[in-house]
Amino acid sequence: MELWFTEKQTATHGITSKISKTLHSEQTEFQKLDMIETDQFGTMLVLDGMVMTTDVDEFVYHEMVTHVPLFTHPNPKKVLVVGGGDGGAIREVLKHPSVEKAVLVEIDGKVIEYSKQYLPNIAGKLDDPRVEVQVDDGFMHIHNHKNEYDVIMVDSTEPVGPAAKLFEKGFYQGIYDALTEEGIFVAQSDNPWFHGDLIKKVFADVQDIFPVTRLYTCNIPTYPSGMWTFTLGSKKHDPVEVDITKIPELDTKYYTPELHRAAFVLPKFVKDLTEKK
Amino acid sequence: MELWFTEKQTATHGITSKISKTLHSEQTEFQKLDMIETDQFGTMLVLDGMVMTTDVDEFVYHEMVTHVPLFTHPNPKKVLVVGGGDGGAIREVLKHPSVEKAVLVEIDGKVIEYSKQYLPNIAGKLDDPRVEVQVDDGFMHIHNHKNEYDVIMVDSTEPVGPAAKLFEKGFYQGIYDALTEEGIFVAQSDNPWFHGDLIKKVFADVQDIFPVTRLYTCNIPTYPSGMWTFTLGSKKHDPVEVDITKIPELDTKYYTPELHRAAFVLPKFVKDLTEKK
Repeated sequence: MELWFTEKQTATHGITSKISKTLHSEQTEFQKLDMIETDQFGTMLVLDGMVMTTDVDEFVYHEMVTHVPLFTHPNPKKVLVVGGGDGGAIREVLKHPSVEKAVLVEIDGKVIEYSKQYLPNIAGKLDDPRVEVQVDDGFMHIHNHKNEYDVIMVDSTEPVGPAAKLFEKGFYQGIYDALTEEGIFVAQSDNPWFHGDLIKKVFADVQDIFPVTRLYTCNIPTYPSGMWTFTLGSKKHDPVEVDITKIPELDTKYYTPELHRAAFVLPKFVKDLTEKK
Repeated sequence: MELWFTEKQTATHGITSKISKTLHSEQTEFQKLDMIETDQFGTMLVLDGMVMTTDVDEFVYHEMVTHVPLFTHPNPKKVLVVGGGDGGAIREVLKHPSVEKAVLVEIDGKVIEYSKQYLPNIAGKLDDPRVEVQVDDGFMHIHNHKNEYDVIMVDSTEPVGPAAKLFEKGFYQGIYDALTEEGIFVAQSDNPWFHGDLIKKVFADVQDIFPVTRLYTCNIPTYPSGMWTFTLGSKKHDPVEVDITKIPELDTKYYTPELHRAAFVLPKFVKDLTEKK
């Protein structure tokens, strides 16, 4: 018998992948969690039926959500990851020697637990002494911390279910207040083929709050359309004005200093989403 | 009843899309041709079970295969498209006023016929007076023409079936000889996630023949992995050294002068495929 997992990325389109084994499956307090073994992408974490990360392509998302803001900030010491219970963003944060403390606030402890068990290459750094893991509501955490973090990354699921409030304008204002005076924030903001309206809304909301707002993209084969976007809001430093010749070499598979700049050069129909009409 | 078309992009992974109608289906002399109506991507041309182009995302491939070489050449007058029977590349070629003649050599006349009928937005310029359509073997055409074309684009299917010989090194040598002294050639070279070895081979083969060899990428949601590559070989002009401030504005949805340069900035694991070890 062949088993295939299909994610309907829209009502009428999706990806399908042959699985060799279901490693774990449960309804947590917040969402349906499945950990499956696929032939093409290795171990895959699926939340509410949507691919969150896989062994094979996880490096793209985690490198791009992390190194772009951290190399834009001149001296990031305290970093917050909201969501991101798989630990991949934290692993990349720890590659920056300036970072003294990396806080992970994930609402669903089960994501952390099963990522540690089944995705050790991704979650393996969550026990590092510089890391503080809190199983808590990121929305509340943001509103209880002021002027504290140099970089905040929102590594959330889609704007349905537990992550819906992480796409509200009030949340971005909270992030602004939680950042230090040179602070930078990045949020995943979905893909332009199926959710152009969301990108437009997030970009406009962030732009109302942050002096510098930029959109950048990367290619993630297991994510809808293969093109993913991140929206970056910054109080002072512009990611496209970073002197990329000064970025130190890092052990990465996707990110490079040249790509740090090129990722902000958008296809025309994507650029149009960031322009006020 | 719901009908879904599934393309296995590898033995164990693929995309799946709901279809509302099969417009045409036949075994041609060369391949299985299906024209279907999908909810997500509109009309879709499928050859031997592989998505070739769709109404919704076709502009990416056609703009990127065309404008990058044509804006790298200082004065392209005579252009050849090998394959590309849907006519999308030709449509983009005609946006360049310097072009006096655009020759399309497609081996399968049925692709042209049904693209004209069902994909008029893509194939609609094939009757332009500057265009010459030949239903013929591109491999033979290349070997019968010397020092004739300023730009040659290979818009082929995958290296199985009728297009297999279009990925041979001898074909690239033939292209070199068919080009004028400032000639430039581009071929689609698949995706780095599933076919890194092919990219490596094509790049190395082209590099053995052309003084300038470059790889660039774009995002095509209906193509495997969502990231597509093109390999460019040039006798003289380097696409990354083009003065992009001098590129005139063109009616495009993906290509921009800034992207002309940024498309050559590769993710690290892709860049590694272009480096001799």
